[in-house]
Amino acid sequence: MEFSCTKKDFANSLQIISRAVSSKQQMPILSGIYLKADNNTLELQATDYEIGLIAKIHADITSPGQIVLSGRYLQEVVRKLPGEIVTFSFHREESIANIQSNQSKFTLLCMNPSEFPTIPFLEGDINFTIKNNILQNLIKKTVFACGTDESRPIFTGCYMEVNGITITMAATNMHRLAVKTETFNSPLGNIKIIIPSKTLNELLHIMTSEIPIDVHVSCSHNKISFAFDNIYMTSRLIEGSFPNYQKVIPKESSTKVKINTSEFSSAVDRVSLISRSNEYNIIRLSFSNGQVHISSNSPEIGNAEEIVSASVEGPEVNIAFNAKYITDALKNIDTEECSFALQQSLNPLTIREKGNDTFLYVATPVRTNH
Amino acid sequence: MEFSCTKKDFANSLQIISRAVSSKQQMPILSGIYLKADNNTLELQATDYEIGLIAKIHADITSPGQIVLSGRYLQEVVRKLPGEIVTFSFHREESIANIQSNQSKFTLLCMNPSEFPTIPFLEGDINFTIKNNILQNLIKKTVFACGTDESRPIFTGCYMEVNGITITMAATNMHRLAVKTETFNSPLGNIKIIIPSKTLNELLHIMTSEIPIDVHVSCSHNKISFAFDNIYMTSRLIEGSFPNYQKVIPKESSTKVKINTSEFSSAVDRVSLISRSNEYNIIRLSFSNGQVHISSNSPEIGNAEEIVSASVEGPEVNIAFNAKYITDALKNIDTEECSFALQQSLNPLTIREKGNDTFLYVATPVRTNH
Repeated sequence: MEFSCTKKDFANSLQIISRAVSSKQQMPILSGIYLKADNNTLELQATDYEIGLIAKIHADITSPGQIVLSGRYLQEVVRKLPGEIVTFSFHREESIANIQSNQSKFTLLCMNPSEFPTIPFLEGDINFTIKNNILQNLIKKTVFACGTDESRPIFTGCYMEVNGITITMAATNMHRLAVKTETFNSPLGNIKIIIPSKTLNELLHIMTSEIPIDVHVSCSHNKISFAFDNIYMTSRLIEGSFPNYQKVIPKESSTKVKINTSEFSSAVDRVSLISRSNEYNIIRLSFSNGQVHISSNSPEIGNAEEIVSASVEGPEVNIAFNAKYITDALKNIDTEECSFALQQSLNPLTIREKGNDTFLYVATPVRTNH
Repeated sequence: MEFSCTKKDFANSLQIISRAVSSKQQMPILSGIYLKADNNTLELQATDYEIGLIAKIHADITSPGQIVLSGRYLQEVVRKLPGEIVTFSFHREESIANIQSNQSKFTLLCMNPSEFPTIPFLEGDINFTIKNNILQNLIKKTVFACGTDESRPIFTGCYMEVNGITITMAATNMHRLAVKTETFNSPLGNIKIIIPSKTLNELLHIMTSEIPIDVHVSCSHNKISFAFDNIYMTSRLIEGSFPNYQKVIPKESSTKVKINTSEFSSAVDRVSLISRSNEYNIIRLSFSNGQVHISSNSPEIGNAEEIVSASVEGPEVNIAFNAKYITDALKNIDTEECSFALQQSLNPLTIREKGNDTFLYVATPVRTNH
């Protein structure tokens, strides 16, 4: 095996692929990156059995072949190489690879490529194409609401329901819920799956194109794949059925509030300086005539109070939340103004974007003594 | 006590002063920042008994006084305040301070100011003024060579010898030595002291003015102070006598090398990718006709080789070092070219800047089997 390619392409694709390199010690082969040179293409693969990543770049191939190298060292070495072109050659007898660029020469020990679990191409039950910015939005607006408790795996992923011309994503940790819907021109198919939040967060990291690109999605009952640019990503899905989240969305509200998103967000952020030091990170919100009063207190530190003007229709409501459940949602509101719907101090709060019904967030309040 | 001041001045000075706030639990009062309002000036103090910091800013004082507040919370709260002006008032009965800016209102619990060890003004045995950039250079070019072993405190500081019109700073960990000298127009006095490396690193962090400013230095046998802009910093000194470092500077050399600093530095940096994984971080340097060959190997990872062209006068030398002892020095070389003076593979290497005799670095080689 022998090839040369640009340092830039090699380094960029290694940076992406490295995200699937396993840091677990049990399976040394998974700490490696699989390289396959053939047909003027260098293919790079890494997998931790949960997520698999493939990148392809152009290379001048003198002799085809496949090897596996330590992901960590290969990435660091290539990133630091001085020249524009990297020359790579594998020496079977010694099981070493030579990596050369200008006056730099590295020799890295190789692993056995036949031990590497190469990533199979997924032929899913449904296949559709979606613009990256639409997919990013579906993910960003829901994934933050996932749970982190590994003993309840269903809640550590985002539910995705493809139903004809709509995709709905939903995430909940039982105390809060985020739901985002997108509508398309033509039917995409029908499927209900739960995608691990780790997969979606990795996808957000990798899918960074600023000009809109097509992402080809394929889903089966236990796997999903995303293909875009020169990248192919696969992931296992979470088994189980997602709870009927519709029933936690409040149907009625007596108090409706409209407020400037960034003003309210900054105020909550400041009050959180104090709430952070109390056990449950509790902030109190009081919605009354023309304003929201935000406060928190900590017996050891002191207290914080903020007033933000708002349009408040309906009876006064005093309610308390884990501050994080409010700040997380506000970070994902893209409209200048947002609306809250409330009932009483023990009923959930609903947050929506102004003039946009495709996003919805529900937070359960905290019962307090005051 | 009641005053108002600009948020910017208050936040900036708190950020500086916070560097001396103690994180140790034993003395709760040292986790506080002492505030004193008087004569249109707000004075802020923090100390961990090793280092003391005072900052002064302009304030409109309605009622003078002094209090102590949690350093951590005061800094975070003021930094996040929304307005340009901060109004501050102390309520003695409840022992709380109100901090207000626009619609934000914080209340922080106060500590007893009489418990705070306010920082005395140092009247040293010698006093001199030095430009900040000259002082920065003296520190930067030596402090990195200090030891970290607290059981040998002398080596955890920089030796400073003021001798008439010269200041010499030197630091060593017994395996390497850095010495920097500056000459002045008029005599500064005479003193020999050891300044803790922590003090000098903090001073580098705080002394950030980009236009040259005067730093007023005062030293006694066990204390030093630095005054510049609105900042006053004091520090204890390390007791003991510094070893005669002059005797470790090689007097003779048989091989003299001139090399491009950044080319050599980048090459050593790349070779370190491999050496880092071996126990003693060893790189090998081979100086011969017109080049330096740099290499390292690790039985588990592989090896690295680099060639950098150089002017080499004298017999070939093969020598090995802890890579960090070379990269640390190269980072502090300011000239495009630097020179190495060598004898044999077990004699120390001397590094100098081209055309500048005021800096000198000596590194002891490592004995290897190869």
